[in-house]
Amino acid sequence: MNSVDLNCDMGESFGTYSLGNDAALMEFVSSVNIACGFHAGDPGVMRDTVRLALEKNLAIGAHPGLPDLTGFGRRVMEISPREAYNIVVYQIGALDGFVRAGGGKLHHVKPHGALYNMAAKDEQLAQAIAQAVKDTDPTLVLYGLSGSALTIAGENAGLNVANEVFADRTYQPDGTLTPRSRPDALIHSDEVALNQVIGMIREGKVRATNGQWADIRADTICIHGDGSHALEFARKIAQMLTQQHISIQAG
Amino acid sequence: MNSVDLNCDMGESFGTYSLGNDAALMEFVSSVNIACGFHAGDPGVMRDTVRLALEKNLAIGAHPGLPDLTGFGRRVMEISPREAYNIVVYQIGALDGFVRAGGGKLHHVKPHGALYNMAAKDEQLAQAIAQAVKDTDPTLVLYGLSGSALTIAGENAGLNVANEVFADRTYQPDGTLTPRSRPDALIHSDEVALNQVIGMIREGKVRATNGQWADIRADTICIHGDGSHALEFARKIAQMLTQQHISIQAG
Amino acid sequence: MNSVDLNCDMGESFGTYSLGNDAALMEFVSSVNIACGFHAGDPGVMRDTVRLALEKNLAIGAHPGLPDLTGFGRRVMEISPREAYNIVVYQIGALDGFVRAGGGKLHHVKPHGALYNMAAKDEQLAQAIAQAVKDTDPTLVLYGLSGSALTIAGENAGLNVANEVFADRTYQPDGTLTPRSRPDALIHSDEVALNQVIGMIREGKVRATNGQWADIRADTICIHGDGSHALEFARKIAQMLTQQHISIQAG
Amino acid sequence: MNSVDLNCDMGESFGTYSLGNDAALMEFVSSVNIACGFHAGDPGVMRDTVRLALEKNLAIGAHPGLPDLTGFGRRVMEISPREAYNIVVYQIGALDGFVRAGGGKLHHVKPHGALYNMAAKDEQLAQAIAQAVKDTDPTLVLYGLSGSALTIAGENAGLNVANEVFADRTYQPDGTLTPRSRPDALIHSDEVALNQVIGMIREGKVRATNGQWADIRADTICIHGDGSHALEFARKIAQMLTQQHISIQAG
Repeated sequence: MNSVDLNCDMGESFGTYSLGNDAALMEFVSSVNIACGFHAGDPGVMRDTVRLALEKNLAIGAHPGLPDLTGFGRRVMEISPREAYNIVVYQIGALDGFVRAGGGKLHHVKPHGALYNMAAKDEQLAQAIAQAVKDTDPTLVLYGLSGSALTIAGENAGLNVANEVFADRTYQPDGTLTPRSRPDALIHSDEVALNQVIGMIREGKVRATNGQWADIRADTICIHGDGSHALEFARKIAQMLTQQHISIQAG
Repeated sequence: MNSVDLNCDMGESFGTYSLGNDAALMEFVSSVNIACGFHAGDPGVMRDTVRLALEKNLAIGAHPGLPDLTGFGRRVMEISPREAYNIVVYQIGALDGFVRAGGGKLHHVKPHGALYNMAAKDEQLAQAIAQAVKDTDPTLVLYGLSGSALTIAGENAGLNVANEVFADRTYQPDGTLTPRSRPDALIHSDEVALNQVIGMIREGKVRATNGQWADIRADTICIHGDGSHALEFARKIAQMLTQQHISIQAG
Repeated sequence: MNSVDLNCDMGESFGTYSLGNDAALMEFVSSVNIACGFHAGDPGVMRDTVRLALEKNLAIGAHPGLPDLTGFGRRVMEISPREAYNIVVYQIGALDGFVRAGGGKLHHVKPHGALYNMAAKDEQLAQAIAQAVKDTDPTLVLYGLSGSALTIAGENAGLNVANEVFADRTYQPDGTLTPRSRPDALIHSDEVALNQVIGMIREGKVRATNGQWADIRADTICIHGDGSHALEFARKIAQMLTQQHISIQAG
Repeated sequence: MNSVDLNCDMGESFGTYSLGNDAALMEFVSSVNIACGFHAGDPGVMRDTVRLALEKNLAIGAHPGLPDLTGFGRRVMEISPREAYNIVVYQIGALDGFVRAGGGKLHHVKPHGALYNMAAKDEQLAQAIAQAVKDTDPTLVLYGLSGSALTIAGENAGLNVANEVFADRTYQPDGTLTPRSRPDALIHSDEVALNQVIGMIREGKVRATNGQWADIRADTICIHGDGSHALEFARKIAQMLTQQHISIQAG
């Protein structure tokens, strides 16, 4: 592969509360996932973030989450597939309003937080979300954890999907993420993380924590927007990709 | 005029709470204004109401309100034109998600409650709302109080507008509604109300409380959905219009 | 036992939405559990419901729920014990404000919906809730599913507890409720339900679905407030208890 | 007067969003006004802020606001006196839950933002808020704008009141604040602000923008918690008061 997408969650401020470093990070990524008001974001933040992304010609995605502002959409809620369908259609539509009002076109949808994790494993939830995306706009790309129930459901629904990988997370021999509860879940060295990314893009492989090579598809790389190190790492990964002649662009 | 639109607010249930008599009222109206989750409605209610309206081939409108679920969007909030723009784009988009997912096309936008009343008088707010509608989709029809700042702003923005009148409210010589604080604000006789409607449609005139005739434009008539009498009055007005050979259809 | 408490969930209206038949049901129960604004209720509803209960000299309880108005607090959310502690203290305090403002004294706390069910099984959550009740006011009675983790945690914390039973639910040989997923979970005959109640109060026993007798402690009986049959069943159970010389009063 | 209260708004973080510098500012003030979840704050933030204030032996106040998280309680909403009463009782109760759970006693109530400003002018609203405070706990001190409708309503209700003044705002000859819309509304010099404070405490007078002296009662001084300069100014005013042998303590 000679290109890869770099995506980042944005628009996570709310009212008087400011979060993240959106404008600076937009210099390095090719696509943004914008919160839609359920777990973060509000109409004013959504509008401003969309405008900024349109100015930078970035691919804009809706980032729907669970209706849990206090918990930032990170707490698992037992919602039915029908409820998942409904909250995803609602949030895609809401963000799309701002994209259209700004003269752009919505590019993709990436579920947030607990909804992302639940949809990675729960086939019924994954199908409901894929159907919600398809029904709202079949040209939208569905972003999900690489090789998960969500990307599979997206493919089965006939959607274009983007398999997402993480630069700073370790993997298991079956291609799944090492659970965060394990001490070796995170990669703390930028060099190791960058090498892992190159391997995933060039070879479609990642070295698991037990030393074996696992197959993995890397259509898009998630850049974290929070933390003091986020901006520096974004710069590094963008530079590295450029040096390796891998273009950074949304699929 | 040989036709008029009958519109009704719908989709005002929320979660476990049921409100209104949507399915029955849909038999008599030509267009529905569906709440978008800020003052009433939720994603599940929106989806169900949209589906029902699509089955009946009704013109579907977004019914954006102030962010005040406890107050049902009826309490005045001092929001800026910018905030009005943003909450209107958000809510149009959200409802449009369900309309598109259901295979339909959004037809109009009618602000709700305090937002409707504020926009009828406040030119800056009216312009912001008209711009929000236009930016999101310039083919949408803007519904507003007949002859108000909102419909004027809509016309100035190049939108199609629908001037809304009320069957059961009395009017002043300048064509404005008699304030609800006055004892003669409401018409309690169905016969008087129906005659007023005929006059507004046929002659473009309404007899004010002081006996004078006032000019008024009646593109659409608001049918109230709440109250035990609502359904009966909807039936009466629909029958009367049919007898008068005035077709009931959205513009 | 010559007395038993009859409790009912109340104050579940919200804003313009009306739910339940509180005033009528208050004629038959000895204690009420009033929603606190997270899953249902709002400050106005809380005030009115508290005033009504004070007029009837009923024991007033806080009925804290998960922060999920759309789902009526019935959807499981994975909250931490610390979060459970905090939302329970908040909601007890809020309701207690109205009880004190009305000149009364708060009597008990009964978690609602998914929080009730989660606390019946999860010891850590149960301990956090019991501690929240104790820290806020150690004289409060903790209502929970009979023999569950919640009432045990309450006893361990030194609180007075009320073991709650259900007239219209069947039980298993170990004294737990038959899961709602099973076809024999509900008792549809009022006569059978009333007999079950008498046995639980008089003998401390309930006949399980397999015919065996199970031990059960019945300090308080939950009267459902929703459904068209609710009021009639409340009247029947109150009459039956009176005929059996079992007084209806909060512990 | 040989003592004055320094108060500061705190607990304005929400969920994942952090705001303010509470712990550092607590070193300089004698009383804190803690947000109650309507305009800012959540149960977790409330608990943590209360605990911190109890450790520092500060006077703890409830800081009830309008139900407008997106607008931080700063947007005027037309609520009825009855609604004001209810939201104030609710929020006092909720915060008091945490104060009692922490082993402390609630000291005062200060309305926030638009509610504070509305209550300063609207007598009916002011009376409703004073009554809410009194009904919930008649020993609570009501903080309000010095000489406003709110402090007058509090006195009429028999409450202890604290007349609040601002170090960095200019005043009119009638003792009211210069409207923020005027260019001379703010004092930009720390020295001028500190001198104004001394005059208000020692003499009960403030020099108005037209040079005249106005009478003013200064029971408590509001220290702003936001802005980069807030901490430095808090330190300065505390030092100055100590040098002037004016003790800093809640009334």
